[in-house]
Amino acid sequence: MAKKYVYSFEEGSAKMKDLLGGKGANLAEMTGLGIPVPPGFTITTEACIEYLKNNNTFPKGMMEEVEKALAALEKKMGKKLGDKKDPLLVSVRSGAKISMPGMMDTVLNLGLNDEAVQGLAKVSGDERFAYDSYRRFIMMFSDIVKGLDRKKFDEVFDAMKKKRGVKNDTDLTADDLKEVVKQFKELYKKLSGSEFPQDPKEQLIDAIHAVFSSWNNERAINYRNHEGIPHDIGTAVNVQSMVYGNLGENSATGVAFTRNPSTGEKKRFGEYLPQAQGEDVVAGVRTPHPIEQLKEEMPEMYKVFDEICEKLERHYKDVQDIEFTIQQGKFYMLQTRTGKRTGVAAAKIAYDLVQEGLIDKKTAVRRITPRDVENTLFPQIDWHNPKQKTYLDENGKEVKAEEFAKGLPASPGAAAGKVYFTADKAKEEADKGEKVILAAEETTPEDFHGMAAAEGIITERGGMTSHAAVVSRQIGTTCIAGAGDVSGMSIHEGKIHGQNGIKIAEGEWVSLDGFEARAYKGKLPLKKAELSKEMETILKWADEIATKEGKGFHVRTNADKPDQTKQAIAYGAKGVGLTRTEHMFMEKNRLPIVQKMILARNEQEKRRKYVFELLPFQREDFEGIFRAAKGYPVIIRLIDPPLHEFLPDEIELLEKIWKNNLPNDSEEAVLLQSVRATAESNPMLGFRGVRLCLAIPELIEMQARAILEAACNVQKEGQEVYPEIMVPVVGFAKEFELAKEIILKTKEEVEKEKKTKLKKFKVGTMIEVPRAALTAEEIAKAGAEFYSVGSNDMTQMLLGFSRDDAGKFIPLYLKLGILEEDPFVSLEQAGVGKILRIMVEGAHKGNPDIEIGICGEQGGEPKSIDFCYRAGFDYVSCSPLRVPVARLAAAHAVINNGPRK
Amino acid sequence: MAKKYVYSFEEGSAKMKDLLGGKGANLAEMTGLGIPVPPGFTITTEACIEYLKNNNTFPKGMMEEVEKALAALEKKMGKKLGDKKDPLLVSVRSGAKISMPGMMDTVLNLGLNDEAVQGLAKVSGDERFAYDSYRRFIMMFSDIVKGLDRKKFDEVFDAMKKKRGVKNDTDLTADDLKEVVKQFKELYKKLSGSEFPQDPKEQLIDAIHAVFSSWNNERAINYRNHEGIPHDIGTAVNVQSMVYGNLGENSATGVAFTRNPSTGEKKRFGEYLPQAQGEDVVAGVRTPHPIEQLKEEMPEMYKVFDEICEKLERHYKDVQDIEFTIQQGKFYMLQTRTGKRTGVAAAKIAYDLVQEGLIDKKTAVRRITPRDVENTLFPQIDWHNPKQKTYLDENGKEVKAEEFAKGLPASPGAAAGKVYFTADKAKEEADKGEKVILAAEETTPEDFHGMAAAEGIITERGGMTSHAAVVSRQIGTTCIAGAGDVSGMSIHEGKIHGQNGIKIAEGEWVSLDGFEARAYKGKLPLKKAELSKEMETILKWADEIATKEGKGFHVRTNADKPDQTKQAIAYGAKGVGLTRTEHMFMEKNRLPIVQKMILARNEQEKRRKYVFELLPFQREDFEGIFRAAKGYPVIIRLIDPPLHEFLPDEIELLEKIWKNNLPNDSEEAVLLQSVRATAESNPMLGFRGVRLCLAIPELIEMQARAILEAACNVQKEGQEVYPEIMVPVVGFAKEFELAKEIILKTKEEVEKEKKTKLKKFKVGTMIEVPRAALTAEEIAKAGAEFYSVGSNDMTQMLLGFSRDDAGKFIPLYLKLGILEEDPFVSLEQAGVGKILRIMVEGAHKGNPDIEIGICGEQGGEPKSIDFCYRAGFDYVSCSPLRVPVARLAAAHAVINNGPRK
Repeated sequence: MAKKYVYSFEEGSAKMKDLLGGKGANLAEMTGLGIPVPPGFTITTEACIEYLKNNNTFPKGMMEEVEKALAALEKKMGKKLGDKKDPLLVSVRSGAKISMPGMMDTVLNLGLNDEAVQGLAKVSGDERFAYDSYRRFIMMFSDIVKGLDRKKFDEVFDAMKKKRGVKNDTDLTADDLKEVVKQFKELYKKLSGSEFPQDPKEQLIDAIHAVFSSWNNERAINYRNHEGIPHDIGTAVNVQSMVYGNLGENSATGVAFTRNPSTGEKKRFGEYLPQAQGEDVVAGVRTPHPIEQLKEEMPEMYKVFDEICEKLERHYKDVQDIEFTIQQGKFYMLQTRTGKRTGVAAAKIAYDLVQEGLIDKKTAVRRITPRDVENTLFPQIDWHNPKQKTYLDENGKEVKAEEFAKGLPASPGAAAGKVYFTADKAKEEADKGEKVILAAEETTPEDFHGMAAAEGIITERGGMTSHAAVVSRQIGTTCIAGAGDVSGMSIHEGKIHGQNGIKIAEGEWVSLDGFEARAYKGKLPLKKAELSKEMETILKWADEIATKEGKGFHVRTNADKPDQTKQAIAYGAKGVGLTRTEHMFMEKNRLPIVQKMILARNEQEKRRKYVFELLPFQREDFEGIFRAAKGYPVIIRLIDPPLHEFLPDEIELLEKIWKNNLPNDSEEAVLLQSVRATAESNPMLGFRGVRLCLAIPELIEMQARAILEAACNVQKEGQEVYPEIMVPVVGFAKEFELAKEIILKTKEEVEKEKKTKLKKFKVGTMIEVPRAALTAEEIAKAGAEFYSVGSNDMTQMLLGFSRDDAGKFIPLYLKLGILEEDPFVSLEQAGVGKILRIMVEGAHKGNPDIEIGICGEQGGEPKSIDFCYRAGFDYVSCSPLRVPVARLAAAHAVINNGPRK
Repeated sequence: MAKKYVYSFEEGSAKMKDLLGGKGANLAEMTGLGIPVPPGFTITTEACIEYLKNNNTFPKGMMEEVEKALAALEKKMGKKLGDKKDPLLVSVRSGAKISMPGMMDTVLNLGLNDEAVQGLAKVSGDERFAYDSYRRFIMMFSDIVKGLDRKKFDEVFDAMKKKRGVKNDTDLTADDLKEVVKQFKELYKKLSGSEFPQDPKEQLIDAIHAVFSSWNNERAINYRNHEGIPHDIGTAVNVQSMVYGNLGENSATGVAFTRNPSTGEKKRFGEYLPQAQGEDVVAGVRTPHPIEQLKEEMPEMYKVFDEICEKLERHYKDVQDIEFTIQQGKFYMLQTRTGKRTGVAAAKIAYDLVQEGLIDKKTAVRRITPRDVENTLFPQIDWHNPKQKTYLDENGKEVKAEEFAKGLPASPGAAAGKVYFTADKAKEEADKGEKVILAAEETTPEDFHGMAAAEGIITERGGMTSHAAVVSRQIGTTCIAGAGDVSGMSIHEGKIHGQNGIKIAEGEWVSLDGFEARAYKGKLPLKKAELSKEMETILKWADEIATKEGKGFHVRTNADKPDQTKQAIAYGAKGVGLTRTEHMFMEKNRLPIVQKMILARNEQEKRRKYVFELLPFQREDFEGIFRAAKGYPVIIRLIDPPLHEFLPDEIELLEKIWKNNLPNDSEEAVLLQSVRATAESNPMLGFRGVRLCLAIPELIEMQARAILEAACNVQKEGQEVYPEIMVPVVGFAKEFELAKEIILKTKEEVEKEKKTKLKKFKVGTMIEVPRAALTAEEIAKAGAEFYSVGSNDMTQMLLGFSRDDAGKFIPLYLKLGILEEDPFVSLEQAGVGKILRIMVEGAHKGNPDIEIGICGEQGGEPKSIDFCYRAGFDYVSCSPLRVPVARLAAAHAVINNGPRK
């Protein structure tokens, strides 16, 4: 059977998104539901894919189908394309499977020509409207289909307004617009070298070409890269009969969400403009009216709108983002799609839909994305006194914030950065490592790179559904929209001119509060937010799924201090996957002792004395962590880094010595000797971890004692404790065996001294040296009770990438397609993943009860979590702030891969 | 059936070495062959193992068997142990499966007591002999069995000699010796607290205890560690009736080899002492007579000796190392064993035995050890004029060598080092990295550690079979023995007093010529020797085995220069497994260009210019290597190290800048910027190899061009060439693919320009990053035609051991038993080996014709070569001087593991 390239809206359905794109499938679905949709048809994504493959040639037979569909449409509408009496006009719009708002092309009013415009004037009884439509069409066609310079057309139009002395487009008369049309056609000829096409079929063919080709325009490619959308799925083309929101007072056009996409509140949310075409709303040129106003101004229309919203929500079981047009008192739906929303809203909506009985808990969990959770944890301004709007500056001085603008709360969060006025400049500065705020009159799809690079965005014009607002919510960037309309802010002459005469030059610090939509001069301190109640509930559901179907797959945290531990447990961590002890050695009052220990490293007695001087400090640290962990397991890693990390830098010492001519017995010169003796060519592969611990066994003994004394003390307080001691940098079973021996001996001593038996206790090792992964069976047989994958170091050694140095080539490697992702962000599965699977198999052979987890940076990254579940890990561990995201990702892993056997 | 712990010599055979030890098995074998051996029996190694396991308790039933065997022996000899008329005397000697000369204990004359000595005096008709035997026994028993201080006994004996005013032991009369015996017994009582045991059974039990326990004395353990002998195989105990070489003029004792163990010449070789016990020869106390003299002095005895030698050689099909005693005109064999020999001798003997039809070629190959080949390549003194004995000193000045001693050529080779006079001091200095020569009056088993640490040994006393001579030959150390006897050299007052009044203080440089047995003052230059003809023949046999049964398993060389290549091909390499190109960048006239290239690294045009300035140099280097390789494959690795290796040291630059207050635009300051920009935390895991090459693709292009132009040029000369370009540090298939693309494009260009098609050519990659090993299938599918394992880097990454830093803990790890061997010397098989097996499997899946080899340091080490054969490698590659050893080891691998399928 030959492929079918064209489907009428009656033929399609919401299930056909792959083929018809999101917009086309939903138009068809609404048509099927009996919702008023202007008739039309969709050219499939397959046609687009073939078109792009075949050097921009339409697939064979496609145009024949288009002509047939067009004929059917003409029949249904009782109008003909290009008819001089009552012409059919159509829109030609792109529509990919995954929404890419504003990234590709749209042509409206197609079908107008010098004759048809006269027919339209007659039929509509509005000559002005007809010529306004024609001039819009010529301009769009020239710009979008033919790629002519839009500015030149704007100039002609502006010149006419100037000539007539009017400000608004609507003040131009039909004759003015006739003149504009004439000048536009001349300009078209001048720029393109040929006449403006009068044949509507030719117009249609050109428009389809333009939409297909726009799939590969630069901003679409950038957008797909950013969003992780595949590049080979193509776009569909929707050809739909036009309806007009600008046909008199009885007309309007609007965009809305069935619920609030910013907060999730169950209340219609949106805007409309009377007497306007849809693009006027989205472009943010005129500030629209809130949707509530429609209730008063066109109550019947509001009723229809509200009923359709309800119907769509019940049908799709999710919030819809809709576009509608009211043409002379008749309501038309032009689009419905799943509404993008903030993380907070996503949780609230999913939670509410469960309460409303529309979806089940698992669906709710699945609907929340890791990014939603991240975005829920949006920063807030860390006010010293929120009522007085004061904050503490970098010197701890209380300062009153200077508000320079107020706008619409388009995307929540708070941000501080240096302000720049173009997307390019913002991106450029962000690439240098600066935090930037983008301030612009309005944003367009071309600005996407700058928006993605910015911490926050503030616009002069545009509403809650303007480009800036939609994109910001989606990428989780704080945004204040329409600050010009709301508070008179304007950007000109390279400065922001704000309230109270405040001026801000490019590069100055500003801070945005996206919740209250207020902007402040200067750098205000930020703080992390709390999880919303709905998000907490959904994460509890996620935990249930991971626990039941994932057989206990869970999330722990990497925390070195009691307060971090407390925060992580509050965020839902089920234990501590990694406590690094070396940070404890680095603190001000401890470092001098550590340095003395290093100086005495070859004198057993002396060095032992210094090592044990550190015991009380460490014990206290551990007690705090055990208390905060509330009985959950706490994995504590013995000292890991090489000795020289505790010593000053050689060059700094030399500078002091040389510049001050210090003698050989000066403190610096003595230190220098140890610095040199302990220096290493490749510290990552050096004398550290268990190697150092076996050479200075007091380090194991002291640390084990500090951990075990702390555990006994806290257990005596009545708090459950579960210490798990982890030996780092193990590569050989015997290393582990020797270290464990010392630990167990110490445990026996401590328990005797403390007259307490610890109820729970384990000894295990880090799996970070590749050899350890390959010999996991032997190490497990040597007594390892848990394995925690140090995926950073494992990645470094397995790939031969020093994390500190790989920055020199990782960007190149991503560009060349050697790497799909930075392996220090997302676990590299083909290599690192392979050895970890070998490890898991060996570990279970060596000890069926062994507990396996991951504690590297990748432990909080969703794709890595998915891998860990598939590979048979028992848990992942990540930084406290990543815990909520990881809990969700853990449940997603279970849902996506099925229950664990 | 109960275990049998005791075997009479009639019951055993040479096949029972595991149970009876080497000495016992061979005594039994000779008994069976009808060769005159004093009767006796052997207590098994099993008894020893059980004894050591059970806390030094004899196994149940063992002593009953000993008593039975003793009774049988008494019956056969017609004498009884402890009999006051005609006592049976026995020796009690250790004898392990693998010979450990002098490392364990021996007791002679056991059975003497105050009564039996009188019987012995009567029966032998020699009272002096009887009391001399008694005093020897008391001394040995006290020292060896009871661990009393030997020096105290020596003092008593020396006091007697002084009292009597005599120099030689033999000048003491029977009465003197009676007095010595009396004083010895008193000393024994004083030191041990009890009377000297008069019961011969008690003496025997104590002696067996002593021999068993001596298995675990420190020097035996050290020896086993050095020789790689297992610690759990135990020693047997041989109880044998005594014969005496000191019973009058008709008696003698000697040690001999059936052929010359130093050169391999087919001529009896050995020494004897008339009127002496065996220990007198071995200890080197008196300088013995050469064995030829026996022909004249005791012609009949020589005939018996010569016939037994012949019989033993034909029976054992190998050179024998024998001990004999002539007691009053009757010839007794006390020991035969396979003779230790130098490498040169090993080759000559094996070759001759093949010619004599006693063994086949494969046996000959198997008999040669890798150490034999190494030792064949003994250094020689690099004379400028060998006749005049002049050499060129470090400034190139011709100097005449100052000979300070001449001795016996005990072990060949040449050595230079700082001279030390005790084993401890020699070891201490060698541990500091010094080259040392040990000069001693004589050596004893306690000196083994110092001998093993020394480059060469020179002794004042002792012959060709003295301890120093035997051990030196075995461990391949140059040795001159008996330099005091030969040329009057003596060591006293912390100085060597040599010929011509030359005095040499401790720590001064001396040089030894082991071939001519001459010692020189100062540091003479050394050179490597050539392979002997016999060794060359045997290595050809080895090649045949590896080629046929090993299906082409072969040896290549790592060579960076034409002369190295030439040397290696002369040593039998079948190609170049690794040419490192970075050395070529380091040369004086090239480094400035490389540095300019680095300074311009971010400016494509400029850097390209500098890169291509290096092309002519590289091409010339490669032409030389291709010519030297004579058509064998040559693997050339693209540049491997990171950029900063070509730049000066940061601290040196800073010192210059700070101390001279250099301005920011000084050459040093500009260089410093690049030094800092290219500095890395872990260079081993940094921006190098293919990573650097893909960032600066000109590096690939230029190097490929230099290689290919050189190959075309040399091919045009009529010489076959086979270039194989190797991409280093590959971890991802795509990296290889991108690099290969550039290489193939360059090849096309060069072949066009040169109007030549290369007949043979490959592109492959180094397997050094662990990820590459795990994804070997993908990389092979991406077009790799060969894999060369960079086992150094693989070991570094897989074990997480930086080679430059691991010296800090590898010695500890060997001591703790975590490592069996230094993994940078011998391939670590449980980890590195495991990933390499995964690699081979993947490689063959990806490309069944792929060629796999190893080019790390371990490629020349026999155990690693054995692994490579087992794992399915096609070749090993090593430094030119290791090639002969590797060829032998390759054949051994094939023989030991069987032919390849």
